[in-house]
Amino acid sequence: MIDFALLIVIAICVIALGLAAVLTRNLLSQDQGTPKMREVADAIRVGAEAFIKRQYSTIAMLAIVFAVVIFAVYYLTNQQPLALATALSFIVGAACSAVAGVVAMWIAVRTNIRTAAAAQTSDGKALDFSFRGGAISGLIITSMSLLGVSLTYIALGADPTHTPFVIIGFGFGASFVALFAQLGGGIYTKAADVGADLVGKVEAGIPEDDVRNPATIADLVGDNVGDCAGRGADLFESTAAENIGAMILGVALFPIFGVNGILFPIAMCALGLLASMIGILSVKGKDGADPMDAMNRGYYITAIISAIFLYFGVQWLLGSIPNWIYFFLAGLVGIALSVAFLRVTLFYTDHHYRPVKEIADASETGAATNIITGFSVGLETTAVPAILIGVSLLLSYWFGTMTGITNGGLYGTAVATIGMLMVCAYVLTMDTFGPIADNAGGIVEMSQAPDEVRNRMDKLDAAGNTTKALTKGYAIGSASLAVFLLFNAYMADIAKLTGKAFEIVNLASVPVFVGALLGAMLVFLFASLAIRAVSKTAQSVIGAVRIQFKDPAIMAGSKKPDYAAVIDITTQGALKNMVLPGILVIGFPIIIGVTMKYEALAGFLMVATITGILLALILNNAGGAWDNAKKFIETGAHGGKKSEAHKAAVVGDTLGDPFKDTAGPSLHVLIKLLATLTLVLAPLFI
Amino acid sequence: MIDFALLIVIAICVIALGLAAVLTRNLLSQDQGTPKMREVADAIRVGAEAFIKRQYSTIAMLAIVFAVVIFAVYYLTNQQPLALATALSFIVGAACSAVAGVVAMWIAVRTNIRTAAAAQTSDGKALDFSFRGGAISGLIITSMSLLGVSLTYIALGADPTHTPFVIIGFGFGASFVALFAQLGGGIYTKAADVGADLVGKVEAGIPEDDVRNPATIADLVGDNVGDCAGRGADLFESTAAENIGAMILGVALFPIFGVNGILFPIAMCALGLLASMIGILSVKGKDGADPMDAMNRGYYITAIISAIFLYFGVQWLLGSIPNWIYFFLAGLVGIALSVAFLRVTLFYTDHHYRPVKEIADASETGAATNIITGFSVGLETTAVPAILIGVSLLLSYWFGTMTGITNGGLYGTAVATIGMLMVCAYVLTMDTFGPIADNAGGIVEMSQAPDEVRNRMDKLDAAGNTTKALTKGYAIGSASLAVFLLFNAYMADIAKLTGKAFEIVNLASVPVFVGALLGAMLVFLFASLAIRAVSKTAQSVIGAVRIQFKDPAIMAGSKKPDYAAVIDITTQGALKNMVLPGILVIGFPIIIGVTMKYEALAGFLMVATITGILLALILNNAGGAWDNAKKFIETGAHGGKKSEAHKAAVVGDTLGDPFKDTAGPSLHVLIKLLATLTLVLAPLFI
Repeated sequence: MIDFALLIVIAICVIALGLAAVLTRNLLSQDQGTPKMREVADAIRVGAEAFIKRQYSTIAMLAIVFAVVIFAVYYLTNQQPLALATALSFIVGAACSAVAGVVAMWIAVRTNIRTAAAAQTSDGKALDFSFRGGAISGLIITSMSLLGVSLTYIALGADPTHTPFVIIGFGFGASFVALFAQLGGGIYTKAADVGADLVGKVEAGIPEDDVRNPATIADLVGDNVGDCAGRGADLFESTAAENIGAMILGVALFPIFGVNGILFPIAMCALGLLASMIGILSVKGKDGADPMDAMNRGYYITAIISAIFLYFGVQWLLGSIPNWIYFFLAGLVGIALSVAFLRVTLFYTDHHYRPVKEIADASETGAATNIITGFSVGLETTAVPAILIGVSLLLSYWFGTMTGITNGGLYGTAVATIGMLMVCAYVLTMDTFGPIADNAGGIVEMSQAPDEVRNRMDKLDAAGNTTKALTKGYAIGSASLAVFLLFNAYMADIAKLTGKAFEIVNLASVPVFVGALLGAMLVFLFASLAIRAVSKTAQSVIGAVRIQFKDPAIMAGSKKPDYAAVIDITTQGALKNMVLPGILVIGFPIIIGVTMKYEALAGFLMVATITGILLALILNNAGGAWDNAKKFIETGAHGGKKSEAHKAAVVGDTLGDPFKDTAGPSLHVLIKLLATLTLVLAPLFI
Repeated sequence: MIDFALLIVIAICVIALGLAAVLTRNLLSQDQGTPKMREVADAIRVGAEAFIKRQYSTIAMLAIVFAVVIFAVYYLTNQQPLALATALSFIVGAACSAVAGVVAMWIAVRTNIRTAAAAQTSDGKALDFSFRGGAISGLIITSMSLLGVSLTYIALGADPTHTPFVIIGFGFGASFVALFAQLGGGIYTKAADVGADLVGKVEAGIPEDDVRNPATIADLVGDNVGDCAGRGADLFESTAAENIGAMILGVALFPIFGVNGILFPIAMCALGLLASMIGILSVKGKDGADPMDAMNRGYYITAIISAIFLYFGVQWLLGSIPNWIYFFLAGLVGIALSVAFLRVTLFYTDHHYRPVKEIADASETGAATNIITGFSVGLETTAVPAILIGVSLLLSYWFGTMTGITNGGLYGTAVATIGMLMVCAYVLTMDTFGPIADNAGGIVEMSQAPDEVRNRMDKLDAAGNTTKALTKGYAIGSASLAVFLLFNAYMADIAKLTGKAFEIVNLASVPVFVGALLGAMLVFLFASLAIRAVSKTAQSVIGAVRIQFKDPAIMAGSKKPDYAAVIDITTQGALKNMVLPGILVIGFPIIIGVTMKYEALAGFLMVATITGILLALILNNAGGAWDNAKKFIETGAHGGKKSEAHKAAVVGDTLGDPFKDTAGPSLHVLIKLLATLTLVLAPLFI
């Protein structure tokens, strides 16, 4: 018989999917604007679909190979009963993650044109459309993640204390696909962007998104395949991996809570999904208003409702112990952390505050000082988030301890993670809103719509930039809590395999210290390869554009440039350059684990995670701050557009592109991938 | 009675000081060039001496405050007998470190002019002078470090197993001064450099080191106070701290080796000093030859003789166990690592190899791609060094284990560290050679000497750039082995204080993980503050120069600019901006340790170290690669000077300045400071 909590999860997911269907139907029935707009939008759609098709073919091949590897590992290490189940759940996880990415992209390339059309008359409507486009992705992806975990659990669920260890395959499959989706998409989007900017704005002196630039469509395609599909896969795997980690921890509490402790994470996430639906529906665009106001209000509504649901959820599932209220407090820590991360990210990337202003000031003395200041801001942004994460971990651990049960402290950190994850669907909505607005702006620009339409879209585009930065802050914050769960899951898994307690990772031992050193190194090396991949692919883009620019008819605007040629080159470059870094981060930990065994690998994993969190913060926030410093100057500060300060700020912005949209987000995926990878391949490391 | 090993150490130090005296006398008797040269050199000397005087006054005040803190900590934690001894040894260490910095600067400002004068006739002679100037510093600093540790040991040495725990005060004093010396000097040198470049080369379009630029003398002063005095203090504290760490480990082996195990580190370093003397004397400049050839040959001679001495030294002091040969092998690992680090650094920062070429190529598409590529190279440079460090630790640990004695593995890593440190005096010589050559080049340039003289100096200057990059590689490599010793010293100290074994730092526990996260964060935050300090001070320099540039007489070259005004502003800025980062890195670990106790602090320390090593590699090597990419383009590649590629490369070079000469080297000091700080204040954390 299926547990009541699972029925609730499934019911909420069905409601969410139903809401997504209604929103989709409603959206698709909207006006698609002028023929010129449709022409641009069609080109974007075709390009995005072609890329996704080729990208996922490559990923599918890699995934099949890896499924065989997993099967073999379990089969050859005398875990035969688990071999097929783990390999299959890996494939299911990978497939679901791929679908999540495709859905996000599918919606985005259909919403962009409708948003652009709406902007012809009303900015409130444009916000509604783009935000709801984001919501469709957010709802589908979150419910798919919950359904995937729940159904796999039911399918494998003869023994509730055993099943969570099998569905780790699902989590790893999701991470595996997310890595390549985010990396490939990230390379694509920024290679096209950097290439288009350098050769267009810098060399030929034509504006951004100018129709004469053959790389512009590739740039707009990039928003969909990198930001939408990539981030969709990323957050899909976040929720999956984090739920699985929390469920494994719940197994340790089985004697106290029974199956309730195991199902608590997914039940809470489902309630959070319900809260997010309410939040989403509360957002209503208003002409002339700041779009951030409506979205922020929706966010706070979601957070408050989540907190209320959390209270009742804890009482319902964990209320069998007298001090259950402490688990509620631990969950509140997680919700508070999600709010705090958004505020801190806003401070570091919004031009109303000191950091971005400082970068804009420094642009007056040239590109070098712009970059020195921006990089210093990026490094600085590690401080408050690290302290926030530290305090949250300690506090939720302490609350957990106050419940008085064994392993209560660790379960406290799990509840905090779950609290943070409850708002996930809403955050994902804000996140996907960004690239949709960006894309709609591009369509408006390229279809040479009137200035008032452009101004409406510029405002939305600026809000999109902010939400993109904020949601990256959220993603890294939630990942940093979640990995702590996954460490414990890994240690529980090893203990189960060896039959010996595994509770200590002694950093003072030479192999663990060396593992830790190599873990930190891998993060830097991976970031290097991701950034370099953008630079290499951008070079090909620049070469291809230069050839077309030699045609005077294209520069005069009388001949349409060959957009498809550039899209094709970017696709090839992105796919080629995503494979090496991907294989490296999968292969290297396996080598460490096999040669240096599980304790050193744990050191590797933990310090890679710490470094990954901090480096992702640096890259994301420095990139966001450079971007907004440029935008701030474009509003007229420091001489405005075409000033020397603006030129300097463009250099910073270009450097920030691969930081914030390729390497940074790929690091989010990396740290979770390392955790799920070590978990799945644990039998190799004992 | 004083041990025979100590007598050997003192004897070798006396010989080294004697050699330094002979070299100094010889050097001071040399020609001081044209009156114009003397005028420039005098201005540099006066500026450097003024800065050092003010800087060390500030440092002295901070040190006195801290001596009182140390005394109070020991007194109030019931360690009264240690209170006075530790506080006093802190003051002696601080004073010695200060003297080391002053000596390095004193020699440098007297050698630069003589090198410039020699370059009028012979590049071989110019190499001889500048290299011997470096050698004087290297010999004095290394022998002072050894003498300081030895004499403090003798003075406090009633109980050999107890004394090493008292002389940690000496090590911390040295670190304390080195931090501020390197940070203040680093800020000074790069603020002046960046300021001079931006306002001169970029804004006014006049060449580097042009006499009309009022910031040029400040720039040349910077080489002396940052590179010479700062690095002098840095390497002084390295040898001191590493010897102390190894001696504490030797205490654990007292039952086996007696006092020999404790004195082994300093005895070996003394033998290494002897080997370095031979290496130094073997270097002889030859007109028309590549100066790197002579210096590299000297280095290999030093390394080979060190290896031979190591063999006999191990036999002499550790030969009482049958398998002593394994300790020799562990030491060889250290010597090999020092050679490997130099080669790797050369690969990443020399224009003959792929990375610098790639950066130069990328400069063709502008500053943004130059920086993206350079940053990606910087991140990449963590890979091979991390693997080398990891393999060296594992290998030397394994060799140590093969001796079959208790704690043999750890002592194996100690012997490897000692092996690496044996060549220290030679490396320090190469290191100080760099800024002397740089300064002599500046003097030649500013005194408007004939082209042939400039060409001679350019060659030497280029070699100086290479040696500076190489020695930074060495410094970080040796630091990374050494801190492992210091961790163990810390753990032994805590165990001694608590009376309980302390052998496990469990990264899987929440407080240790949070400590580790905050440790990594501190490194990034410190780098941020160091880089920002340069940027802030450079802004003041730029402001001051702009005012003078408004005077047409200065721009026409008919009026001498007011060099002293810029020197004064730079001095003030550097001193003001060094205090906050310095206090932060001292205060933050104390807060962590007091609130979260010793195990979490150990996690903090270890992960801060890992992150510090890797970030220092990134900053040093990216900076070096950008610098050499610019120099490579200046030789005519990619359009040569004044091409667009060159302009782009200048931006990268400017960004690299605070990376490689302020933040990077300050991180070297930081990681050792954290180790000695936690060691000295251990009673607070239990």
